[in-house]
Amino acid sequence: MGLDMGTMLGRMANLSTSDHTSVVAITLFVTLLCACIVIGHLLEESRWMNESITALIIGVCTGVLILVMSGGKSSHLLVFSEDLFFIYLLPPIIFNAGFQVKKKQFFRNFMTIMLFGAIGTLISFVIISLGAIAFFQKMDIGLAIGDYLAIGAIFAATDSVCTLQVLNQDETPLLYSLVFGEGVVNDATSVVLFNAVQNFDLSHINTSVAFQLIGNFIYLFISSTLLGVVTGLLSAYVIKKLYFGRHSTDREVAIMMLMAYLSYMLAELFYLSGILTVFFCGIVMSHYTWHNVTENSRVTTKHTFATLSFVAETFIFLYVGMDALDIEKWRVVSDSPKTSISVSATLLGLTLLGRAAFVFPLSFLSNLTKKSAHEKISFKQQVTIWWAGLMRGAVSMALAYNQFTRAGHTQLRGNAILITSTITIVLFSNVVFGLLTKPLVRFLMPSSKVLQSMISSDSLTPKSFMVPLLGESMDSEAELFIGNGQASETHEGGQSVVRPSSLRMLLTTPTRTVHYYWRKFDDAFMRPVFGGRGFVPYVPGSPTEQSVHWQGEDKQ
Amino acid sequence: MGLDMGTMLGRMANLSTSDHTSVVAITLFVTLLCACIVIGHLLEESRWMNESITALIIGVCTGVLILVMSGGKSSHLLVFSEDLFFIYLLPPIIFNAGFQVKKKQFFRNFMTIMLFGAIGTLISFVIISLGAIAFFQKMDIGLAIGDYLAIGAIFAATDSVCTLQVLNQDETPLLYSLVFGEGVVNDATSVVLFNAVQNFDLSHINTSVAFQLIGNFIYLFISSTLLGVVTGLLSAYVIKKLYFGRHSTDREVAIMMLMAYLSYMLAELFYLSGILTVFFCGIVMSHYTWHNVTENSRVTTKHTFATLSFVAETFIFLYVGMDALDIEKWRVVSDSPKTSISVSATLLGLTLLGRAAFVFPLSFLSNLTKKSAHEKISFKQQVTIWWAGLMRGAVSMALAYNQFTRAGHTQLRGNAILITSTITIVLFSNVVFGLLTKPLVRFLMPSSKVLQSMISSDSLTPKSFMVPLLGESMDSEAELFIGNGQASETHEGGQSVVRPSSLRMLLTTPTRTVHYYWRKFDDAFMRPVFGGRGFVPYVPGSPTEQSVHWQGEDKQ
Repeated sequence: MGLDMGTMLGRMANLSTSDHTSVVAITLFVTLLCACIVIGHLLEESRWMNESITALIIGVCTGVLILVMSGGKSSHLLVFSEDLFFIYLLPPIIFNAGFQVKKKQFFRNFMTIMLFGAIGTLISFVIISLGAIAFFQKMDIGLAIGDYLAIGAIFAATDSVCTLQVLNQDETPLLYSLVFGEGVVNDATSVVLFNAVQNFDLSHINTSVAFQLIGNFIYLFISSTLLGVVTGLLSAYVIKKLYFGRHSTDREVAIMMLMAYLSYMLAELFYLSGILTVFFCGIVMSHYTWHNVTENSRVTTKHTFATLSFVAETFIFLYVGMDALDIEKWRVVSDSPKTSISVSATLLGLTLLGRAAFVFPLSFLSNLTKKSAHEKISFKQQVTIWWAGLMRGAVSMALAYNQFTRAGHTQLRGNAILITSTITIVLFSNVVFGLLTKPLVRFLMPSSKVLQSMISSDSLTPKSFMVPLLGESMDSEAELFIGNGQASETHEGGQSVVRPSSLRMLLTTPTRTVHYYWRKFDDAFMRPVFGGRGFVPYVPGSPTEQSVHWQGEDKQ
Repeated sequence: MGLDMGTMLGRMANLSTSDHTSVVAITLFVTLLCACIVIGHLLEESRWMNESITALIIGVCTGVLILVMSGGKSSHLLVFSEDLFFIYLLPPIIFNAGFQVKKKQFFRNFMTIMLFGAIGTLISFVIISLGAIAFFQKMDIGLAIGDYLAIGAIFAATDSVCTLQVLNQDETPLLYSLVFGEGVVNDATSVVLFNAVQNFDLSHINTSVAFQLIGNFIYLFISSTLLGVVTGLLSAYVIKKLYFGRHSTDREVAIMMLMAYLSYMLAELFYLSGILTVFFCGIVMSHYTWHNVTENSRVTTKHTFATLSFVAETFIFLYVGMDALDIEKWRVVSDSPKTSISVSATLLGLTLLGRAAFVFPLSFLSNLTKKSAHEKISFKQQVTIWWAGLMRGAVSMALAYNQFTRAGHTQLRGNAILITSTITIVLFSNVVFGLLTKPLVRFLMPSSKVLQSMISSDSLTPKSFMVPLLGESMDSEAELFIGNGQASETHEGGQSVVRPSSLRMLLTTPTRTVHYYWRKFDDAFMRPVFGGRGFVPYVPGSPTEQSVHWQGEDKQ
């Protein structure tokens, strides 16, 4: 595998690493990651492409190359590893999503998100499982009842990472919070469903089992959320009490990173939903902890979390792309191409159907509870929600490998067919649905198009930083610059730029009341203890007064 | 291991990770890391303690706790892994050292550093090997000739990480650059030595073998350095050409991190010295790449690299501390406590002697080439150099485990004795020598004491940021703040605060001439292509003019 130069030099002692294959694999992956970032940057202007699809394509190409170079023996350097995915790659992505999420938007739609994430996933699971039983039992693939239910869980598992790639929080805040929030709650539902599939006798469902499952879900949801909130508050308290900022930015950044990761690992340790935990930890950290640290720490954490998330996402898509040519399974499947194609097509159809079966009815239900017309989810928005959540990604891959292989390998025909079908659906849904989502959003919601070109493409160039600040004082260039820095943050995290849709939302009364009491409680009890904007001891010339614009949505 | 709650909940399916032990280990390590940072911060005022010793002690305590809880069966959750150390923990530490090193100081002492790193390590290796043969052959431990030579290499391997912990670049710039630079060059020497020990028949050394070894060293040194420089320049070129800054801070940060890591992994791939490569990559990146990115990226990379390095260092000491109670080896050794103690004492004595045998003669040689008195290394400085380089750390541990165990386990008495002796020396040298280095530096060089209290303890508190700026314009609080941010960077990375010793050095003529031609070459050929300070296209209000103070040492 291109190791000629390496083996040539191989005479020399390898002091450092016992396992040279891992060095080769890491070098290859890092090189490809760099390539993805550079190429993704060059293709950014394109309205069709995005980084995830670039990474997928580069991954597949590399897989082909490795396949050719290894003489058809292997297509990847690493067998898909659940640990790598769930322990190292997923936490930074979900944490960053919680850290950067528009909190107000998220909590306003909380009930709808819960409805979609819990009931919706269940509906999807049932439909896909029943469909799989109906279609596949005739095909003689050799699956047990547990496998059918697992198929339901695999294809009902929304991939939050994909959502982050195709929906933009600034362009379509409502859709983003609904689809992404659904994905986060979906994780808790998945844990319960998998538990149910593996431990309960689902052929004899009765009331007590149903209640047990519902109880399990409620327990998981509440304890996971609480764990995340507590860890986040603890980090805020520790940093506020010790006031690391006076001494070391590096310590503050380290504590924030480690505590965020700790929340995820604690959830995993206690068999909770790590995704829910780390998501809420991110929300709490951005509300309290982030305001307790120095300006340098804020810039650093904000960009480091975003960078780590970005790299992890790119890595996942690269990985999935390289894994697509899992030659061992494709060879088993190649004897019966018709069966394989029909299984993939059936599953894709069931996924489409399963999602439609809960998005439209539950949106209707959700709309019933809303009074004003602009709060309701319009039909066009419903179509977009349905479409944007169709992609299946690394989560489905991980679950499929978990269910249908032993340590990544299988020789059973049925299992191989399901692995290759999962790969097909992941690739197809990402490339086809992923490519079409951007145009679809623009087609269905043309109003967001103008907004997008204003916020998303240009906001990060230095020139546009100045626009909102032209009216403010510009005594010195130094102030102009720091002002610019703030302005960019306002663009990304806050809402001080007037946006028609969110402005309308700000005028709605009911959420305002809940929000009003939360603010009162927050100001009276939480902020004095845990810090947060405006509650850090005032030091003349300190960063505190610089950050008034940021996260303006908290204060409306 | 405190898993009662986990096993209680263990009825529930574990969706996410197949291997729960790794979750337990990671959770424990992250928790302990947080504890180390918090406790290290609280103990910072103490003149004796530092973070590494705190981490060592916490590690040992945790080891005891695990030993008690597991009923004397095991003292660590993870067996010491070379891969973990060399692939993940070492690169960020060495890269950050190169990124933050005072380049001028380093290159001024280049010849002395090479002398210490290459010839000095060799002298140390020979003395320790010969001493081991002389003493241990009588003791009947059962070692072969290769083992004696390996002992020489293990205890001649300077640990750059420990140096970073006890010497301060701002307090003692000359000593820091000498001892740390020696440690970096030492890595290349170690690779050659290990190669020699494993592949050559050293009992029949002749001229051709000696030349081959010298040739190997020169090849390794030059190719590793070149690889680091080329990777660094490539990152500068890519970022300058594509001008990521206009679009995304996250991409810039990602490219810088990934390229830095790539340089290390490429060196490992080609069996070069990764430490040398990543060190020079850090130097080049801080000279060119860092100036091509946005102000936010600069703050982020500076603090992220420092944080990663800080966390990795803490982790290593924690790890070494936990590994100290390697009960399997201690049990083998406990039959013959006298042998074990005398082996440890002999090795410690040999280490002291081996280092003394090259520091004083080579300093004398180096002084012969210097004309002015203040350029020479004074006797007090020589004593400090000797003392500060005595600590042995994770590198020695990794080499010892590599030589004397198979995958971390051994039942041979001789091997077990050497493993426990290495552990003893690592702990002893870190705790005793480490604790005494700070007081020793203060005792031998009292002039640096005042400086230290001025720079190191207070410079990071907001108030002292203002001191050097009181004379400058203070039109607005915003400007004051950004000024403060800059001032702190000046403290950390630059030399705009007048320091007696470095001021004197600036007046020396010979290095000035070399430096003058380098500047001319840099300005004429390098910077126009690769960017760097003052060579990035000017944008009004852009960060470029803000960073004039930073790294002031480049321009004198």
